[in-house]
Amino acid sequence: MKLLVINPNISDDVTALIGSEALRSASPGTSLVVRTAGHGVEYIETRFESLIAAGAVAEIIAEHTATGGSDGDPIDGVVVAAFGDPGMPALKELADVPVIGITEAALCAAALQGHRFSIIAISDRIRPWYLDCVERFGLGGRLASIRSINETLNAIGSVQQDFKETLLALSRQAVAEDGADVVILAGAPLAGLARELRGQIPVPVVDGISAGIRMAEAVVGLQSGLHRAGAFAPPPVKARKGLSENLDAALTAAQTAANAAASTHN
Amino acid sequence: MKLLVINPNISDDVTALIGSEALRSASPGTSLVVRTAGHGVEYIETRFESLIAAGAVAEIIAEHTATGGSDGDPIDGVVVAAFGDPGMPALKELADVPVIGITEAALCAAALQGHRFSIIAISDRIRPWYLDCVERFGLGGRLASIRSINETLNAIGSVQQDFKETLLALSRQAVAEDGADVVILAGAPLAGLARELRGQIPVPVVDGISAGIRMAEAVVGLQSGLHRAGAFAPPPVKARKGLSENLDAALTAAQTAANAAASTHN
Amino acid sequence: MKLLVINPNISDDVTALIGSEALRSASPGTSLVVRTAGHGVEYIETRFESLIAAGAVAEIIAEHTATGGSDGDPIDGVVVAAFGDPGMPALKELADVPVIGITEAALCAAALQGHRFSIIAISDRIRPWYLDCVERFGLGGRLASIRSINETLNAIGSVQQDFKETLLALSRQAVAEDGADVVILAGAPLAGLARELRGQIPVPVVDGISAGIRMAEAVVGLQSGLHRAGAFAPPPVKARKGLSENLDAALTAAQTAANAAASTHN
Amino acid sequence: MKLLVINPNISDDVTALIGSEALRSASPGTSLVVRTAGHGVEYIETRFESLIAAGAVAEIIAEHTATGGSDGDPIDGVVVAAFGDPGMPALKELADVPVIGITEAALCAAALQGHRFSIIAISDRIRPWYLDCVERFGLGGRLASIRSINETLNAIGSVQQDFKETLLALSRQAVAEDGADVVILAGAPLAGLARELRGQIPVPVVDGISAGIRMAEAVVGLQSGLHRAGAFAPPPVKARKGLSENLDAALTAAQTAANAAASTHN
Amino acid sequence: MKLLVINPNISDDVTALIGSEALRSASPGTSLVVRTAGHGVEYIETRFESLIAAGAVAEIIAEHTATGGSDGDPIDGVVVAAFGDPGMPALKELADVPVIGITEAALCAAALQGHRFSIIAISDRIRPWYLDCVERFGLGGRLASIRSINETLNAIGSVQQDFKETLLALSRQAVAEDGADVVILAGAPLAGLARELRGQIPVPVVDGISAGIRMAEAVVGLQSGLHRAGAFAPPPVKARKGLSENLDAALTAAQTAANAAASTHN
Amino acid sequence: MKLLVINPNISDDVTALIGSEALRSASPGTSLVVRTAGHGVEYIETRFESLIAAGAVAEIIAEHTATGGSDGDPIDGVVVAAFGDPGMPALKELADVPVIGITEAALCAAALQGHRFSIIAISDRIRPWYLDCVERFGLGGRLASIRSINETLNAIGSVQQDFKETLLALSRQAVAEDGADVVILAGAPLAGLARELRGQIPVPVVDGISAGIRMAEAVVGLQSGLHRAGAFAPPPVKARKGLSENLDAALTAAQTAANAAASTHN
Repeated sequence: MKLLVINPNISDDVTALIGSEALRSASPGTSLVVRTAGHGVEYIETRFESLIAAGAVAEIIAEHTATGGSDGDPIDGVVVAAFGDPGMPALKELADVPVIGITEAALCAAALQGHRFSIIAISDRIRPWYLDCVERFGLGGRLASIRSINETLNAIGSVQQDFKETLLALSRQAVAEDGADVVILAGAPLAGLARELRGQIPVPVVDGISAGIRMAEAVVGLQSGLHRAGAFAPPPVKARKGLSENLDAALTAAQTAANAAASTHN
Repeated sequence: MKLLVINPNISDDVTALIGSEALRSASPGTSLVVRTAGHGVEYIETRFESLIAAGAVAEIIAEHTATGGSDGDPIDGVVVAAFGDPGMPALKELADVPVIGITEAALCAAALQGHRFSIIAISDRIRPWYLDCVERFGLGGRLASIRSINETLNAIGSVQQDFKETLLALSRQAVAEDGADVVILAGAPLAGLARELRGQIPVPVVDGISAGIRMAEAVVGLQSGLHRAGAFAPPPVKARKGLSENLDAALTAAQTAANAAASTHN
Repeated sequence: MKLLVINPNISDDVTALIGSEALRSASPGTSLVVRTAGHGVEYIETRFESLIAAGAVAEIIAEHTATGGSDGDPIDGVVVAAFGDPGMPALKELADVPVIGITEAALCAAALQGHRFSIIAISDRIRPWYLDCVERFGLGGRLASIRSINETLNAIGSVQQDFKETLLALSRQAVAEDGADVVILAGAPLAGLARELRGQIPVPVVDGISAGIRMAEAVVGLQSGLHRAGAFAPPPVKARKGLSENLDAALTAAQTAANAAASTHN
Repeated sequence: MKLLVINPNISDDVTALIGSEALRSASPGTSLVVRTAGHGVEYIETRFESLIAAGAVAEIIAEHTATGGSDGDPIDGVVVAAFGDPGMPALKELADVPVIGITEAALCAAALQGHRFSIIAISDRIRPWYLDCVERFGLGGRLASIRSINETLNAIGSVQQDFKETLLALSRQAVAEDGADVVILAGAPLAGLARELRGQIPVPVVDGISAGIRMAEAVVGLQSGLHRAGAFAPPPVKARKGLSENLDAALTAAQTAANAAASTHN
Repeated sequence: MKLLVINPNISDDVTALIGSEALRSASPGTSLVVRTAGHGVEYIETRFESLIAAGAVAEIIAEHTATGGSDGDPIDGVVVAAFGDPGMPALKELADVPVIGITEAALCAAALQGHRFSIIAISDRIRPWYLDCVERFGLGGRLASIRSINETLNAIGSVQQDFKETLLALSRQAVAEDGADVVILAGAPLAGLARELRGQIPVPVVDGISAGIRMAEAVVGLQSGLHRAGAFAPPPVKARKGLSENLDAALTAAQTAANAAASTHN
Repeated sequence: MKLLVINPNISDDVTALIGSEALRSASPGTSLVVRTAGHGVEYIETRFESLIAAGAVAEIIAEHTATGGSDGDPIDGVVVAAFGDPGMPALKELADVPVIGITEAALCAAALQGHRFSIIAISDRIRPWYLDCVERFGLGGRLASIRSINETLNAIGSVQQDFKETLLALSRQAVAEDGADVVILAGAPLAGLARELRGQIPVPVVDGISAGIRMAEAVVGLQSGLHRAGAFAPPPVKARKGLSENLDAALTAAQTAANAAASTHN
């Protein structure tokens, strides 16, 4: 199984964190292609930054679905590796393979291990966007709290080192004061920290990246079939202009596949 | 008052419909700048098409907020003229003037005139995206139904002529069978049709474009003040790359204004 | 456009505050008729006081819709100028023009400018009633908080002067601690205060009275059509007794108009 | 135990139906005072008619709480005997005894006997008001359906005879098609019909009037104590004008009792 | 009327508390059979303990419905006397008489006396289970708070004596800080405490046991009819094995009665 | 990884279906122990049958967690293989390994592949229980519909053969009429059918058993840590009686492990 893992922000050090944790999490038979957004911001904290990131992620998905990627082997699934799930669920329309955000993956991993969960986040500004994301997925009723660092970050690549004690304290408060049965350490910059803190937090701790990899493996493994009707079928054929070459090719490919299926059915 | 009205799809004939109805709706002191998306699709039916459109709308907003627009006069508000509100509410972060989608405007216009409302749409595929939009605005509990044309469209510019009888029948069914107190004729391609059908539908009928113009005038007129804190303040200053020149300039301008305000407060 | 603005409580000094802010907010072509409830209480804080007020408002609407008002010119819309929207949405049945409460107007104005909003209120007792009102409108999911003065009021006409610093502090707490993107200064006794405090609160601030005027102008301007079916059509013809002369006449007039429309349709 | 049972509409034949079923339902030690609204409409179908009725009910409650009623014996509880619960929950502020609507009573009786329930109603117009009432009580999530007679009523006093077969058919459809575990025959004009139809409907059938009587007995029997704080304490003392003598006296009495309690606590 | 009151935990001293308060609450014509769970735990605090208790309660219900109980007289209703309502609503399928939990009874008693209510509980661990119970009943939107003792209990039979001051303080905080209109003293170990504390808490106080008895009397008195269709009809006939003799007999008896009814209908 | 897969009903032919599909779904490194409930019913359709099944499942979990199972090797996770998730989430308290129901697993698998999903069920009676289960998991807002066979089943082991065409038709209706983006074939008796029908249904089709296996593998693989606080920690130590030897031992073992952890933390 080959998974395309996309860092929706432009920080290579975050991509490195993502890549390391993804490798640690992946099952033996899974190979990973890890990519960084071609345009965007250093790290995503707002709804608008997430919108920009969504466009950048679409380009990378399109590149791989249109061409099969750099090595010609098709990918079997996509993991969008920023908490807040930029572009979801819209991006699921773009490919005939599962496209999964790390937030939705983490929410499922948490919801299967307890009833209420808290999210620990890297900045106060990021919280409304995360809350949107949880509510849109439909699990807002199970959110115990979102707690966040309210200090200025030095560097996005070292957040988990710089604020380890703060993140541990926030996690424990979520359990003791907010009633969290599970804690989610949110955001790609925290990738891998859950492994380190687990023994020190008295409930299961979910890491977004590893949840994303494991859930993608699970869903890809199910081979549930393709969207040939409904809201996630490829967008209908119609005039378009000004899209990137990859995006244009990806849409054409998707529509062609969908039409072939339709004609088979008739 | 000067409003920037943006057609998020690439169809000039839809822009013409939008422009005409916007003109008919605007108050005497309101001037309009009507623009068409620089890239995208013929008309927007899916979550992914909406994501593409959101990027195109951001570019136009950025162009105007960064430069003051073609004539140098600053705009006082923005109307995003596609039902489904591509890019909302993220786009509200991008400008220091109100940015209002025609769906949210129509929902408010409907909610102030009755309790439950129905949306009449141009295609079956478009319904899940519209439903998302209503739920995200928070008024899902007041939605009586979404009814839609389930036939192939000939041309997007002539939908309202081609399917007038169908749209009228759907509207009446929404009242008689679904309990709608108000009917919303959704989608820029239907701009202006409400004026024509009103006498023939036994409840108030809301047109997205005119609701967008009127609600934008109302909100701009309130001069409620700027977002200098919270989730709609300009995105924080951070490294970015690969954005268009306009977007980059708009973000810089927004952050500069926000910082100036912050230093004044301190 | 001629708007009837009704103060649902009996305090003339509150009516004066309402009238002043309504005048400052109205567009050039709008004329205002401002009226005070004929019976009721000094200011409304409870569900029962709101029920009493609703009856008083109904009498004034009936007087104008039955007779066209003191000058014989028909009104084009009604603004019910008490936060908590006494009698809504029931009163919308009573007239063939839009009848709009200042809470629902303020909620729309806030919802179009941000995602979550807080309400700043003049007493602790008033909060459950306001919460009901927000939930019934359907936007309870976007309410960040209701904060209130918990001191005894000296005089209802001077609340905004007497407690300016408290109201400012509550507003800032709503932003900093509750996540409000927009603050609503609630209650007719605070009419006009938003203009004064705006620069000192770091998010948009909405005033109920001016929102009511602007939103009423917008909705009246849309000319969406009449309720001739559904839950807001005039109440069916049936035996009644003991109603005031105006109310009786208004119901008769409404039913006559509705029947005329019905016979036209057949 | 002495219960005041109020018919919120002006129809004496409906009062007779209410009185008969109330008598059949009451426990041995319960005495009933049955009253008809002094003003209002023949039967209540709309939100506005309900608002008018709420005022009429308030007058009767006030008359009894201020004076102890015609025989001088105080009442122990009030049943508001119109489905849709006009004036609820506001009227609970007005008396130091439980004031209970037949809808909320019927909802509780249904919710204790099954999970989902349907409401069978006497007219299509009445449904939105009933739906409001269920949602405001908080049990909207358990409502299977509201089904209604969609024919013209001959006389309100004979609805249950005239439409018995229709009402039976609607009840069975609610079970078979809508998933109702319990059926509520709604509206005082149907008082007593449940006794007759029970054997013919394959789930429990709840009558509003008898539920109102039984639930009022249960709650009065609990002697849970008085509202001396919170949203249902008597309205605060303040200037008022134009209220009826009874209402004025009732408010004064309530406030006096509340103040006495407060001074005792201090 | 004969009610079977079941203590779902194994503590005889809690059964004694239940029995005493049940006797104080019952109407003159009501006789009580009070039983203790045959297996289970000392007191129930968790979802799993509640699951164990549900099985024990089923055995006792089965014993009585299969045989008519020890004295051969059939019971008219069942009260499941542990807050959290173990086995509800499933247990309602098992008998042709109303089976009512004390939580659902207390929620109805509270909801009929105010709008928002708080629950005062004996341990922190117990809160998530209680919250589940309120949400599943459908009244989560009216829950002001759940407050609890966070100290170790000495003995379950003396909790109300040992922590009287704490429970009083928690109740007052619920009113003053959480907006509770009604306070529910939760859990059979607190049975009877409400009578003692009422004068000292400024809102109505509901006791679970007495609410259970009173609501069961009310519902039994309504004689609403049997479940012969829908989700609470007896489970369909099918192979089973390993059930207790009583349970097996109860299911057979229920199915036989249901089939008899079905053949009568055909 | 060793998973314990429990059939909560007593039918060996359903266990065989479960075992076959579980084997087909499991990853190479996963070994399975498949067990049938020791007591209960042929197949579970009602809330009460589910309650009985929950007890039977608890016994099997207890047997394995107390003893390590028949071969002495500890299990790494548990899959409860009946749709409707009997005993969830309570059973998660009982073991220090993930315990996952096939419904919650299927809901996650569906929610990661689309927005709205439908459930196809084997009987009408089963639907309310399934609906409860979806709502309690928190994803009720994404449920498009539950459709079911409304004919008598011949034999539970051959449902998928006997009703293949019906199940296919129901699935297609869910897509075309209800707006399902994903279809879940619900219930262990349908195990494996999804593989066969996938090509004939135009959206992804999820099988409960394979979703259960894959999701359990994913969650076990995450090694998120143990519940040592919060609602899923082992139940507190307290007197108990009458439990089976296995259950008693399992609770003791869980509490011992929890206490050891607690003393380590202190």
